[in-house]
Amino acid sequence: MTTADYKKIEAYMHDCMLESAHDREHVYRVLYTALLIADGEETVDYDVLLAACLLHDIGRLEQNQNPALDHAEVGAQKARTFLAKNGFSETFCARVADCIYTHRFRSACPPETLEAKILFDADKLDATGAMGIARTLSYRSIVDEPLYTRCADGTVCDGTGDAPPSFFQEYKFKLERLYDRFYTERGKALALERRAAAVSFYESLLSEVRAAYDGGEQRVLPHLND
Amino acid sequence: MTTADYKKIEAYMHDCMLESAHDREHVYRVLYTALLIADGEETVDYDVLLAACLLHDIGRLEQNQNPALDHAEVGAQKARTFLAKNGFSETFCARVADCIYTHRFRSACPPETLEAKILFDADKLDATGAMGIARTLSYRSIVDEPLYTRCADGTVCDGTGDAPPSFFQEYKFKLERLYDRFYTERGKALALERRAAAVSFYESLLSEVRAAYDGGEQRVLPHLND
Repeated sequence: MTTADYKKIEAYMHDCMLESAHDREHVYRVLYTALLIADGEETVDYDVLLAACLLHDIGRLEQNQNPALDHAEVGAQKARTFLAKNGFSETFCARVADCIYTHRFRSACPPETLEAKILFDADKLDATGAMGIARTLSYRSIVDEPLYTRCADGTVCDGTGDAPPSFFQEYKFKLERLYDRFYTERGKALALERRAAAVSFYESLLSEVRAAYDGGEQRVLPHLND
Repeated sequence: MTTADYKKIEAYMHDCMLESAHDREHVYRVLYTALLIADGEETVDYDVLLAACLLHDIGRLEQNQNPALDHAEVGAQKARTFLAKNGFSETFCARVADCIYTHRFRSACPPETLEAKILFDADKLDATGAMGIARTLSYRSIVDEPLYTRCADGTVCDGTGDAPPSFFQEYKFKLERLYDRFYTERGKALALERRAAAVSFYESLLSEVRAAYDGGEQRVLPHLND
Protein backbone atom coordinates (compact mmCIF):
# COMPACT_ATOMS: atom_id res chain seq x y z
CA MET A 1 0.00 0.00 0.00
CA THR A 2 1.29 3.50 -0.73
CA THR A 3 1.76 5.99 2.11
CA ALA A 4 -0.87 8.19 0.44
CA ASP A 5 -3.44 5.37 0.52
CA TYR A 6 -2.59 4.56 4.14
CA LYS A 7 -3.03 8.23 5.13
CA LYS A 8 -6.33 8.42 3.25
CA ILE A 9 -7.72 5.37 5.05
CA GLU A 10 -6.39 6.64 8.40
CA ALA A 11 -8.04 10.05 7.82
CA TYR A 12 -11.38 8.35 7.06
CA MET A 13 -11.09 6.37 10.30
CA HIS A 14 -10.48 9.64 12.19
CA ASP A 15 -13.53 11.22 10.54
CA CYS A 16 -15.72 8.28 11.57
CA MET A 17 -14.39 8.32 15.15
CA LEU A 18 -14.22 12.06 15.78
CA GLU A 19 -16.22 11.72 18.97
CA SER A 20 -14.05 9.18 20.70
CA ALA A 21 -10.33 9.60 21.35
CA HIS A 22 -10.47 6.38 23.40
CA ASP A 23 -11.68 4.39 20.44
CA ARG A 24 -9.03 5.89 18.14
CA GLU A 25 -6.26 4.86 20.55
CA HIS A 26 -7.78 1.37 20.61
CA VAL A 27 -7.49 1.28 16.80
CA TYR A 28 -3.74 2.03 16.97
CA ARG A 29 -3.17 -0.61 19.65
CA VAL A 30 -5.02 -3.14 17.50
CA LEU A 31 -3.05 -2.15 14.39
CA TYR A 32 0.36 -2.35 16.10
CA THR A 33 -0.53 -5.60 17.87
CA ALA A 34 -1.86 -7.12 14.64
CA LEU A 35 1.55 -6.49 13.06
CA LEU A 36 3.24 -8.28 15.99
CA ILE A 37 0.92 -11.26 15.48
CA ALA A 38 1.43 -11.18 11.70
CA ASP A 39 5.19 -11.58 12.28
CA GLY A 40 4.48 -15.13 13.39
CA GLU A 41 2.49 -15.97 10.24
CA GLU A 42 3.34 -16.54 6.59
CA THR A 43 1.55 -15.23 3.47
CA VAL A 44 -0.14 -12.30 5.20
CA ASP A 45 -1.70 -9.77 2.83
CA TYR A 46 -0.51 -6.63 4.64
CA ASP A 47 -2.56 -4.25 2.51
CA VAL A 48 -5.76 -6.00 3.57
CA LEU A 49 -4.58 -6.23 7.18
CA LEU A 50 -3.62 -2.54 7.49
CA ALA A 51 -6.91 -1.35 5.99
CA ALA A 52 -8.99 -3.79 8.05
CA CYS A 53 -7.28 -2.79 11.32
CA LEU A 54 -7.66 0.93 10.66
CA LEU A 55 -11.34 0.60 9.69
CA HIS A 56 -12.57 -2.20 11.96
CA ASP A 57 -14.50 0.03 14.40
CA ILE A 58 -15.84 2.74 12.06
CA GLY A 59 -19.39 1.45 12.68
CA ARG A 60 -19.20 2.12 16.46
CA LEU A 61 -21.01 5.46 16.37
CA GLU A 62 -23.98 3.93 14.53
CA GLN A 63 -24.21 1.07 17.07
CA ASN A 64 -23.93 3.51 19.99
CA GLN A 65 -26.77 5.58 18.56
CA ASN A 66 -28.88 2.50 17.80
CA PRO A 67 -27.94 -0.61 19.81
CA ALA A 68 -29.99 -2.79 17.43
CA LEU A 69 -27.26 -2.23 14.83
CA ASP A 70 -24.09 -4.37 14.76
CA HIS A 71 -20.97 -2.21 14.41
CA ALA A 72 -19.16 -5.00 12.57
CA GLU A 73 -21.88 -5.17 9.92
CA VAL A 74 -22.19 -1.38 9.59
CA GLY A 75 -18.39 -0.97 9.56
CA ALA A 76 -17.91 -3.62 6.86
CA GLN A 77 -20.45 -1.88 4.64
CA LYS A 78 -18.99 1.59 5.22
CA ALA A 79 -15.44 0.35 4.58
CA ARG A 80 -16.47 -1.35 1.33
CA THR A 81 -18.20 1.79 0.06
CA PHE A 82 -15.32 4.08 1.07
CA LEU A 83 -12.62 1.87 -0.45
CA ALA A 84 -14.55 1.33 -3.70
CA LYS A 85 -15.08 5.08 -4.07
CA ASN A 86 -11.34 5.56 -3.67
CA GLY A 87 -10.42 3.22 -6.49
CA PHE A 88 -9.43 0.06 -4.60
CA SER A 89 -10.19 -3.20 -6.45
CA GLU A 90 -13.42 -5.08 -5.84
CA THR A 91 -11.48 -8.07 -4.46
CA PHE A 92 -9.57 -5.86 -2.03
CA CYS A 93 -12.76 -4.15 -0.85
CA ALA A 94 -14.43 -7.51 -0.30
CA ARG A 95 -11.49 -8.96 1.65
CA VAL A 96 -11.24 -5.93 3.96
CA ALA A 97 -15.02 -5.89 4.49
CA ASP A 98 -14.93 -9.61 5.34
CA CYS A 99 -12.29 -9.05 8.06
CA ILE A 100 -14.38 -6.29 9.61
CA TYR A 101 -17.62 -8.26 9.36
CA THR A 102 -16.18 -11.21 11.31
CA HIS A 103 -14.20 -9.37 14.01
CA ARG A 104 -16.94 -9.17 16.62
CA PHE A 105 -16.70 -11.44 19.68
CA ARG A 106 -20.47 -11.82 19.96
CA SER A 107 -20.95 -12.55 16.25
CA ALA A 108 -22.10 -15.90 14.89
CA CYS A 109 -19.70 -15.53 11.91
CA PRO A 110 -16.18 -16.55 12.91
CA PRO A 111 -13.15 -15.19 10.99
CA GLU A 112 -11.97 -17.49 8.20
CA THR A 113 -9.13 -15.76 6.30
CA LEU A 114 -5.71 -15.30 7.88
CA GLU A 115 -6.06 -11.50 7.94
CA ALA A 116 -9.51 -11.77 9.55
CA LYS A 117 -8.09 -14.10 12.22
CA ILE A 118 -5.21 -11.69 12.94
CA LEU A 119 -7.59 -8.72 13.27
CA PHE A 120 -9.93 -10.75 15.50
CA ASP A 121 -7.04 -11.77 17.78
CA ALA A 122 -5.49 -8.28 17.95
CA ASP A 123 -8.90 -6.80 18.79
CA LYS A 124 -9.63 -9.45 21.43
CA LEU A 125 -6.17 -8.95 22.98
CA ASP A 126 -7.25 -5.40 23.82
CA ALA A 127 -10.01 -6.96 25.96
CA THR A 128 -7.58 -9.19 27.88
CA GLY A 129 -5.34 -8.34 30.83
CA ALA A 130 -5.31 -4.97 32.56
CA MET A 131 -6.39 -3.20 29.35
CA GLY A 132 -9.52 -5.36 29.13
CA ILE A 133 -10.34 -4.40 32.72
CA ALA A 134 -9.66 -0.70 32.07
CA ARG A 135 -11.77 -0.56 28.91
CA THR A 136 -14.65 -2.51 30.48
CA LEU A 137 -14.68 -0.28 33.57
CA SER A 138 -14.64 2.83 31.39
CA TYR A 139 -17.48 1.60 29.18
CA ARG A 140 -19.63 0.35 32.08
CA SER A 141 -19.26 3.74 33.72
CA ILE A 142 -20.36 5.65 30.60
CA VAL A 143 -23.53 3.54 30.29
CA ASP A 144 -24.01 3.96 34.07
CA GLU A 145 -23.78 0.29 35.02
CA PRO A 146 -22.68 -0.53 38.56
CA LEU A 147 -19.44 -2.28 39.53
CA TYR A 148 -21.43 -4.96 41.33
CA THR A 149 -24.91 -5.86 42.43
CA ARG A 150 -26.15 -7.40 45.67
CA CYS A 151 -27.89 -10.77 45.91
CA ALA A 152 -31.27 -11.20 47.60
CA ASP A 153 -29.50 -12.07 50.88
CA GLY A 154 -27.51 -8.79 50.79
CA THR A 155 -24.16 -10.35 49.87
CA VAL A 156 -22.19 -9.01 46.90
CA CYS A 157 -22.87 -11.02 43.73
CA ASP A 158 -19.73 -12.32 41.98
CA GLY A 159 -21.26 -11.89 38.50
CA THR A 160 -21.97 -15.56 37.74
CA GLY A 161 -25.28 -17.13 36.75
CA ASP A 162 -28.14 -14.80 35.93
CA ALA A 163 -26.55 -11.80 37.64
CA PRO A 164 -27.93 -8.43 36.48
CA PRO A 165 -25.65 -6.14 34.40
CA SER A 166 -22.54 -4.95 36.24
CA PHE A 167 -18.77 -4.95 35.81
CA PHE A 168 -18.56 -8.33 37.59
CA GLN A 169 -21.23 -9.79 35.30
CA GLU A 170 -19.38 -8.57 32.17
CA TYR A 171 -16.13 -9.98 33.55
CA LYS A 172 -17.71 -13.41 34.03
CA PHE A 173 -19.70 -13.35 30.79
CA LYS A 174 -17.05 -12.00 28.44
CA LEU A 175 -13.61 -11.15 29.84
CA GLU A 176 -13.02 -14.45 31.60
CA ARG A 177 -14.05 -16.49 28.55
CA LEU A 178 -11.91 -14.74 25.95
CA TYR A 179 -8.77 -16.80 26.36
CA ASP A 180 -10.04 -19.88 24.50
CA ARG A 181 -11.17 -17.82 21.53
CA PHE A 182 -7.88 -16.97 19.81
CA TYR A 183 -7.10 -18.20 16.30
CA THR A 184 -3.35 -17.55 15.98
CA GLU A 185 -0.53 -19.05 18.06
CA ARG A 186 1.01 -15.63 18.74
CA GLY A 187 -2.37 -14.16 19.71
CA LYS A 188 -3.07 -16.99 22.12
CA ALA A 189 0.40 -16.72 23.68
CA LEU A 190 0.10 -12.95 24.18
CA ALA A 191 -3.38 -13.38 25.70
CA LEU A 192 -2.17 -15.99 28.17
CA GLU A 193 0.69 -13.68 29.26
CA ARG A 194 -1.90 -11.04 30.09
CA ARG A 195 -4.49 -13.27 31.76
CA ALA A 196 -3.09 -13.17 35.34
CA ALA A 197 -3.45 -9.37 35.55
CA ALA A 198 -7.19 -9.57 34.79
CA VAL A 199 -7.90 -12.51 37.10
CA SER A 200 -5.97 -10.88 39.92
CA PHE A 201 -7.83 -7.58 39.54
CA TYR A 202 -11.26 -9.25 39.54
CA GLU A 203 -10.41 -11.30 42.63
CA SER A 204 -8.96 -8.31 44.50
CA LEU A 205 -11.97 -6.11 43.75
CA LEU A 206 -14.45 -8.82 44.74
CA SER A 207 -12.59 -9.49 47.96
CA GLU A 208 -12.36 -5.77 48.86
CA VAL A 209 -16.06 -5.18 48.21
CA ARG A 210 -17.09 -8.25 50.17
CA ALA A 211 -14.85 -7.22 53.07
CA ALA A 212 -16.74 -3.92 53.26
CA TYR A 213 -20.27 -5.36 52.94
CA ASP A 214 -20.03 -8.67 54.77
CA GLY A 215 -21.51 -7.99 58.17
CA GLY A 216 -21.73 -4.26 57.34
CA GLU A 217 -25.35 -3.76 58.31
CA GLN A 218 -24.80 -5.86 61.43
CA ARG A 219 -22.02 -3.46 62.46
CA VAL A 220 -24.49 -0.55 62.31
CA LEU A 221 -27.26 -2.17 64.42
CA PRO A 222 -25.56 -2.15 67.87
CA HIS A 223 -25.28 1.64 67.58
CA LEU A 224 -29.01 2.19 67.02
CA ASN A 225 -30.86 2.36 70.34
CA ASP A 226 -34.62 2.46 70.30
CA MET B 1 -28.82 7.31 67.72
CA THR B 2 -32.37 6.02 67.23
CA THR B 3 -33.26 3.95 64.20
CA ALA B 4 -35.68 6.72 63.17
CA ASP B 5 -32.88 9.33 63.22
CA TYR B 6 -30.57 7.01 61.28
CA LYS B 7 -33.26 6.44 58.63
CA LYS B 8 -33.94 10.17 58.40
CA ILE B 9 -30.25 10.98 57.81
CA GLU B 10 -29.94 8.09 55.33
CA ALA B 11 -33.00 9.34 53.41
CA TYR B 12 -31.51 12.84 53.19
CA MET B 13 -28.26 11.35 51.82
CA HIS B 14 -30.31 9.49 49.17
CA ASP B 15 -32.12 12.71 48.23
CA CYS B 16 -28.80 14.55 47.80
CA MET B 17 -27.30 11.73 45.74
CA LEU B 18 -30.30 10.75 43.60
CA GLU B 19 -28.26 11.08 40.41
CA SER B 20 -25.48 8.73 41.34
CA ALA B 21 -25.96 5.12 42.41
CA HIS B 22 -22.15 4.71 42.29
CA ASP B 23 -21.67 7.44 44.88
CA ARG B 24 -24.36 5.98 47.13
CA GLU B 25 -22.65 2.58 47.11
CA HIS B 26 -19.40 4.36 47.99
CA VAL B 27 -21.15 5.87 51.03
CA TYR B 28 -22.16 2.43 52.31
CA ARG B 29 -18.64 1.05 51.80
CA VAL B 30 -17.25 4.01 53.73
CA LEU B 31 -19.80 3.58 56.52
CA TYR B 32 -19.21 -0.16 56.93
CA THR B 33 -15.42 0.23 56.71
CA ALA B 34 -15.47 3.11 59.22
CA LEU B 35 -17.17 0.77 61.71
CA LEU B 36 -14.41 -1.81 61.13
CA ILE B 37 -11.79 0.85 61.82
CA ALA B 38 -13.69 2.15 64.85
CA ASP B 39 -13.51 -1.35 66.38
CA GLY B 40 -9.78 -0.76 66.86
CA GLU B 41 -10.31 2.56 68.67
CA GLU B 42 -11.64 3.59 72.08
CA THR B 43 -14.06 6.40 72.96
CA VAL B 44 -15.60 6.69 69.52
CA ASP B 45 -18.77 8.81 69.38
CA TYR B 46 -20.76 6.51 67.12
CA ASP B 47 -23.63 8.95 66.63
CA VAL B 48 -21.24 11.50 65.15
CA LEU B 49 -19.46 8.83 63.11
CA LEU B 50 -22.66 7.34 61.62
CA ALA B 51 -24.03 10.75 60.63
CA ALA B 52 -20.69 11.95 59.23
CA CYS B 53 -20.22 8.80 57.13
CA LEU B 54 -23.73 8.93 55.71
CA LEU B 55 -23.49 12.65 54.86
CA HIS B 56 -19.82 13.05 53.88
CA ASP B 57 -20.40 13.31 50.11
CA ILE B 58 -23.72 15.20 49.97
CA GLY B 59 -21.89 18.18 48.43
CA ARG B 60 -20.73 16.18 45.39
CA LEU B 61 -23.49 17.34 43.05
CA GLU B 62 -22.67 21.01 43.73
CA GLN B 63 -18.95 20.42 43.06
CA ASN B 64 -19.73 18.48 39.87
CA GLN B 65 -21.88 21.36 38.64
CA ASN B 66 -19.31 23.99 39.66
CA PRO B 67 -15.74 22.66 40.05
CA ALA B 68 -14.75 25.85 41.88
CA LEU B 69 -16.78 24.59 44.86
CA ASP B 70 -15.30 22.14 47.40
CA HIS B 71 -17.71 19.27 48.10
CA ALA B 72 -16.34 18.93 51.64
CA GLU B 73 -17.14 22.56 52.44
CA VAL B 74 -20.57 22.46 50.75
CA GLY B 75 -21.35 19.09 52.37
CA ALA B 76 -20.38 20.29 55.85
CA GLN B 77 -22.67 23.30 55.52
CA LYS B 78 -25.59 21.27 54.14
CA ALA B 79 -25.22 18.64 56.87
CA ARG B 80 -25.14 21.27 59.61
CA THR B 81 -28.30 22.95 58.29
CA PHE B 82 -30.14 19.66 57.81
CA LEU B 83 -29.25 18.29 61.25
CA ALA B 84 -30.08 21.56 63.02
CA LYS B 85 -33.49 21.69 61.31
CA ASN B 86 -34.13 18.16 62.54
CA GLY B 87 -33.53 18.98 66.18
CA PHE B 88 -29.99 17.67 66.71
CA SER B 89 -27.93 19.64 69.26
CA GLU B 90 -25.63 22.41 68.17
CA THR B 91 -22.59 20.50 69.44
CA PHE B 92 -23.59 17.41 67.49
CA CYS B 93 -24.16 19.42 64.29
CA ALA B 94 -20.76 21.10 64.68
CA ARG B 95 -18.91 17.81 65.26
CA VAL B 96 -20.49 16.12 62.24
CA ALA B 97 -19.84 19.16 60.05
CA ASP B 98 -16.20 19.20 61.18
CA CYS B 99 -15.71 15.55 60.14
CA ILE B 100 -17.16 16.28 56.70
CA TYR B 101 -15.19 19.50 56.30
CA THR B 102 -11.84 17.74 56.88
CA HIS B 103 -12.42 14.49 54.94
CA ARG B 104 -11.03 15.66 51.60
CA PHE B 105 -7.63 14.34 50.48
CA ARG B 106 -6.74 17.57 48.67
CA SER B 107 -7.81 19.81 51.55
CA ALA B 108 -5.39 21.90 53.60
CA CYS B 109 -7.38 21.14 56.79
CA PRO B 110 -6.44 17.72 58.16
CA PRO B 111 -8.87 15.77 60.39
CA GLU B 112 -8.31 16.35 64.12
CA THR B 113 -11.04 14.53 66.06
CA LEU B 114 -11.08 10.73 66.28
CA GLU B 115 -14.34 10.49 64.30
CA ALA B 116 -12.94 12.79 61.59
CA LYS B 117 -9.82 10.63 61.34
CA ILE B 118 -11.90 7.45 61.04
CA LEU B 119 -14.07 8.98 58.29
CA PHE B 120 -10.99 10.26 56.47
CA ASP B 121 -9.34 6.82 56.59
CA ALA B 122 -12.48 4.91 55.57
CA ASP B 123 -13.01 7.29 52.64
CA LYS B 124 -9.36 7.08 51.55
CA LEU B 125 -9.46 3.27 51.79
CA ASP B 126 -12.04 3.33 48.99
CA ALA B 127 -9.34 4.96 46.81
CA THR B 128 -6.77 2.25 47.56
CA GLY B 129 -6.38 -1.20 46.02
CA ALA B 130 -8.50 -2.48 43.16
CA MET B 131 -11.45 -0.29 44.23
CA GLY B 132 -9.30 2.84 43.92
CA ILE B 133 -8.36 1.76 40.40
CA ALA B 134 -11.98 0.96 39.47
CA ARG B 135 -13.35 4.26 40.80
CA THR B 136 -10.59 6.31 39.17
CA LEU B 137 -11.07 4.59 35.80
CA SER B 138 -14.81 5.14 36.00
CA TYR B 139 -14.46 8.82 36.88
CA ARG B 140 -11.75 9.52 34.27
CA SER B 141 -13.98 7.98 31.65
CA ILE B 142 -17.00 10.11 32.56
CA VAL B 143 -14.95 13.33 32.28
CA ASP B 144 -13.48 11.93 29.04
CA GLU B 145 -9.85 11.79 30.13
CA PRO B 146 -7.59 9.29 28.40
CA LEU B 147 -5.98 6.25 30.02
CA TYR B 148 -2.54 7.51 28.97
CA THR B 149 -0.85 10.17 26.92
CA ARG B 150 2.16 9.96 24.65
CA CYS B 151 5.42 11.82 25.20
CA ALA B 152 6.96 14.06 22.53
CA ASP B 153 9.06 11.08 21.31
CA GLY B 154 5.94 8.95 20.79
CA THR B 155 6.49 6.66 23.79
CA VAL B 156 3.72 6.13 26.33
CA CYS B 157 4.04 8.48 29.32
CA ASP B 158 4.00 6.73 32.72
CA GLY B 159 2.16 9.64 34.40
CA THR B 160 5.10 11.12 36.35
CA GLY B 161 6.38 14.69 36.25
CA ASP B 162 4.27 17.25 34.44
CA ALA B 163 2.28 14.65 32.52
CA PRO B 164 -1.06 15.93 31.15
CA PRO B 165 -4.30 14.61 32.72
CA SER B 166 -4.84 10.86 32.26
CA PHE B 167 -5.46 7.77 34.36
CA PHE B 168 -1.69 7.22 34.70
CA GLN B 169 -1.19 10.82 35.83
CA GLU B 170 -3.93 10.49 38.46
CA TYR B 171 -2.43 7.20 39.64
CA LYS B 172 0.98 8.83 40.14
CA PHE B 173 -0.38 12.07 41.58
CA LYS B 174 -2.97 10.66 43.97
CA LEU B 175 -3.44 6.88 44.16
CA GLU B 176 0.22 6.00 44.66
CA ARG B 177 0.67 8.60 47.41
CA LEU B 178 -2.32 7.70 49.54
CA TYR B 179 -0.70 5.04 51.67
CA ASP B 180 1.25 7.45 53.92
CA ARG B 181 -1.82 9.51 54.65
CA PHE B 182 -3.74 7.30 57.09
CA TYR B 183 -4.42 8.42 60.66
CA THR B 184 -5.57 5.21 62.36
CA GLU B 185 -3.61 1.99 62.84
CA ARG B 186 -6.45 -0.14 61.46
CA GLY B 187 -6.89 2.16 58.44
CA LYS B 188 -3.19 2.05 57.63
CA ALA B 189 -3.09 -1.76 57.97
CA LEU B 190 -6.12 -2.24 55.70
CA ALA B 191 -4.62 0.16 53.13
CA LEU B 192 -1.31 -1.69 53.05
CA GLU B 193 -3.15 -5.00 52.51
CA ARG B 194 -4.77 -3.49 49.43
CA ARG B 195 -1.73 -1.70 48.01
CA ALA B 196 -0.29 -4.58 45.95
CA ALA B 197 -3.46 -4.89 43.84
CA ALA B 198 -3.22 -1.25 42.74
CA VAL B 199 0.53 -1.31 42.04
CA SER B 200 0.22 -4.52 40.09
CA PHE B 201 -2.65 -3.18 37.96
CA TYR B 202 -0.80 0.05 37.11
CA GLU B 203 2.35 -1.85 36.16
CA SER B 204 0.47 -4.39 34.05
CA LEU B 205 -1.47 -1.72 32.18
CA LEU B 206 1.65 0.36 31.50
CA SER B 207 3.54 -2.67 30.29
CA GLU B 208 0.69 -3.80 28.00
CA VAL B 209 0.28 -0.35 26.46
CA ARG B 210 4.00 0.06 25.94
CA ALA B 211 4.22 -3.39 24.34
CA ALA B 212 1.65 -2.27 21.77
CA TYR B 213 3.16 1.16 21.01
CA ASP B 214 6.89 0.54 21.29
CA GLY B 215 8.06 0.16 17.72
CA GLY B 216 4.44 0.24 16.52
CA GLU B 217 4.86 2.87 13.84
CA GLN B 218 8.09 1.22 12.73
CA ARG B 219 6.17 -2.01 12.16
CA VAL B 220 3.84 -0.19 9.76
CA LEU B 221 6.54 1.48 7.63
CA PRO B 222 7.97 -1.62 5.83
CA HIS B 223 4.48 -2.25 4.41
CA LEU B 224 4.16 1.19 2.83
CA ASN B 225 5.77 1.25 -0.60
CA ASP B 226 6.11 4.56 -2.39
